[in-house]
Amino acid sequence: MQFVIVRDQTGMVQVTHRREEGDDSLAKSIEELTRESAIEVVGMVVHNDVVQLGQLEILTESINVLGPAFPELPIDEDSSLDNRLDWRYLDLRRPSNLLIFRVQTWIEHVMRQYWLENEFIEIHSPKLMGSASESGGELFQLDHFGQTAYLAQSPQFFKQMAMAAGFERVFEIAPVFRANPSFTSRHDTEFTSVDVEISWVRSHEDVMRFEEEWLHYVLTAVKEKYGDAISEAFGVEVIVPALPFPRVTMAEAYSILERLGHTIARQKGDLDPEGERTLARYVNETFRHEFVFVTDYPASARPFYHMRHAANPGLTRSFDLIWKGVEITTGAQREHRYDILSRQAIESSLSLEPIQYYLDFFKFGCPPHGGFGFGLTRMLMMLLGANTVREVTYLYRGPNRLSP
Amino acid sequence: MQFVIVRDQTGMVQVTHRREEGDDSLAKSIEELTRESAIEVVGMVVHNDVVQLGQLEILTESINVLGPAFPELPIDEDSSLDNRLDWRYLDLRRPSNLLIFRVQTWIEHVMRQYWLENEFIEIHSPKLMGSASESGGELFQLDHFGQTAYLAQSPQFFKQMAMAAGFERVFEIAPVFRANPSFTSRHDTEFTSVDVEISWVRSHEDVMRFEEEWLHYVLTAVKEKYGDAISEAFGVEVIVPALPFPRVTMAEAYSILERLGHTIARQKGDLDPEGERTLARYVNETFRHEFVFVTDYPASARPFYHMRHAANPGLTRSFDLIWKGVEITTGAQREHRYDILSRQAIESSLSLEPIQYYLDFFKFGCPPHGGFGFGLTRMLMMLLGANTVREVTYLYRGPNRLSP
Repeated sequence: MQFVIVRDQTGMVQVTHRREEGDDSLAKSIEELTRESAIEVVGMVVHNDVVQLGQLEILTESINVLGPAFPELPIDEDSSLDNRLDWRYLDLRRPSNLLIFRVQTWIEHVMRQYWLENEFIEIHSPKLMGSASESGGELFQLDHFGQTAYLAQSPQFFKQMAMAAGFERVFEIAPVFRANPSFTSRHDTEFTSVDVEISWVRSHEDVMRFEEEWLHYVLTAVKEKYGDAISEAFGVEVIVPALPFPRVTMAEAYSILERLGHTIARQKGDLDPEGERTLARYVNETFRHEFVFVTDYPASARPFYHMRHAANPGLTRSFDLIWKGVEITTGAQREHRYDILSRQAIESSLSLEPIQYYLDFFKFGCPPHGGFGFGLTRMLMMLLGANTVREVTYLYRGPNRLSP
Repeated sequence: MQFVIVRDQTGMVQVTHRREEGDDSLAKSIEELTRESAIEVVGMVVHNDVVQLGQLEILTESINVLGPAFPELPIDEDSSLDNRLDWRYLDLRRPSNLLIFRVQTWIEHVMRQYWLENEFIEIHSPKLMGSASESGGELFQLDHFGQTAYLAQSPQFFKQMAMAAGFERVFEIAPVFRANPSFTSRHDTEFTSVDVEISWVRSHEDVMRFEEEWLHYVLTAVKEKYGDAISEAFGVEVIVPALPFPRVTMAEAYSILERLGHTIARQKGDLDPEGERTLARYVNETFRHEFVFVTDYPASARPFYHMRHAANPGLTRSFDLIWKGVEITTGAQREHRYDILSRQAIESSLSLEPIQYYLDFFKFGCPPHGGFGFGLTRMLMMLLGANTVREVTYLYRGPNRLSP
């Protein structure tokens, strides 16, 4: 008897061949098969209680080797992450890796479904920009027919342009680029950004309410279709978050952390990773919730285009969303009034000339609006309990990695 | 009486204010309104037979100017395309432009729906590459932490990698970059590419069959939802193409064109734009069909990775799809056998070192596969009868245009 396990997108099955007397060319081709070859099998599928793998086997009539594999595989179960990434397409053959991308496909589908049901327009904003999008730091640049072009770090300005164009509600899922030299588990030089922008909001509260309802919808659908598979493959339970998500202002967050013994210099205006984790633990213990919105960041810690509170211009109408102790989203109501926006840009020591095209968006009538964005892989990492975005990115790009 | 027309994503409506005696601050704010301002209106919607616009009007109680417009608009109905692109967000406010992006949103939705129903996996392949993807021509390059990175001209190699990874069926909708200096109506330096790759095909015929069924599904859904609106706004009828689409081999195409008096040097191995139009006219007259697959291109006119006919290695298992006289898709069965693929690369005078990582995809068992790709805006251009991709691109990028 000869046995071959074949694997395709739907799973694995045993192929059985009973050797025959005399010339048995099928036995010979099975003997010569190398692991991981791509083959076509013709045979009869039969039930067999003895077969562990699904109690099924294929009784072979013929095997056709369509894509033979070299005999020595360059990686195995014990290979390092870096080595696995060198041979990513072999690494991706592991069923748990295929599952990651099935889950990703489904997440994007349900995200879009929600948007479509809510009259969103999909945009494809350019990744080549004539001037720096925000800070000027972490930018890749290139020559574009004699002019310097920059790779978009985010579609921020262009999704806001859609608001000025009267599109009212837009989304985009597309690559963004960050010339960030860090090698942490959360960073890469290119990733897929999920972006949403909506008009006619009254405050950042409206944006948060949209986001939490959308995430509730998305995680419900993910749990329904892949909850069991995720729990089996990664040992992580998908929890559908209760609505509304807990909210704490940045000022409250500082007080909570101080009470818990984690002191951060308030003038920084932001949380450090340890602060995010501590706050998440507190929220989980207090509200039994994996998510928390941290709101009302000081203006000094946010970009110039975040709207300020009218009664307290030192604070912005902004938020971060923290999931399981990691910041996954940044959002805000934007400043849509030309004069105030220009003044805030000057106060942030920006020179107006390179961003004048952006300021112009607000010159001829723009509704109040806000939005948020996040990295798809960072979300997947949290969902699946992965250690690093590299495990959940199709092909990771970092300071030392441009290949394959 | 005062009248204001307000417009939002859903359409336009008349706002009516009956001036009152004495102090009328509402009348004053209406007088001071500038065109295209973003306003909030509170009032009662009433039926009124006299009102041309939908026989509806809003009897105003209050008007709140949330985003005032400067009084002089920089473009009007008669502005040149270039001028309109300078102020693209104002240009996009025209209802027919909003319609373009609603149609685009819907097309992508139904494309993905078909893929999802057919077990496709969505991939996000990197746009930063460590080496040139295909020819080496028309490439943008940049410094990536001391290494030269190239912007992907297509996801070709990476969607094939998914086949080597056992993903079997993948799609991607994402930007691609071409350092193409031409200013034609069909070209840009960045556009949204729609890409499909499927495993276990027996020939390019399987790929064409998939594509035509998919397009049939997509155009049926587009006609159903937006056929009337497209015909009204652009004067173009959306025709659902009959299945199967007509097919002619390249050799047959040359004969047909010669008979019609349009002679092309056969050694070029391709059609010129006039040839594409002439062939399309012939097909339309003969088969009453807007589409035609041109198949079996000579190897000299195709990339090294297109599979050759076993019986005639001078010809490839490839096709282009021509719609209304314009080539919109290129597709093929790919060569998945490592030895043959390497030989074909050498015969095409490529140096193997920069593409070795790609050739490696075929070393450890890869199923036969094929696929196709096209520019989303080129498809929209043909669907809506636009003169240039610039009209149907959210923000066009070309040799002279990086802004806004």
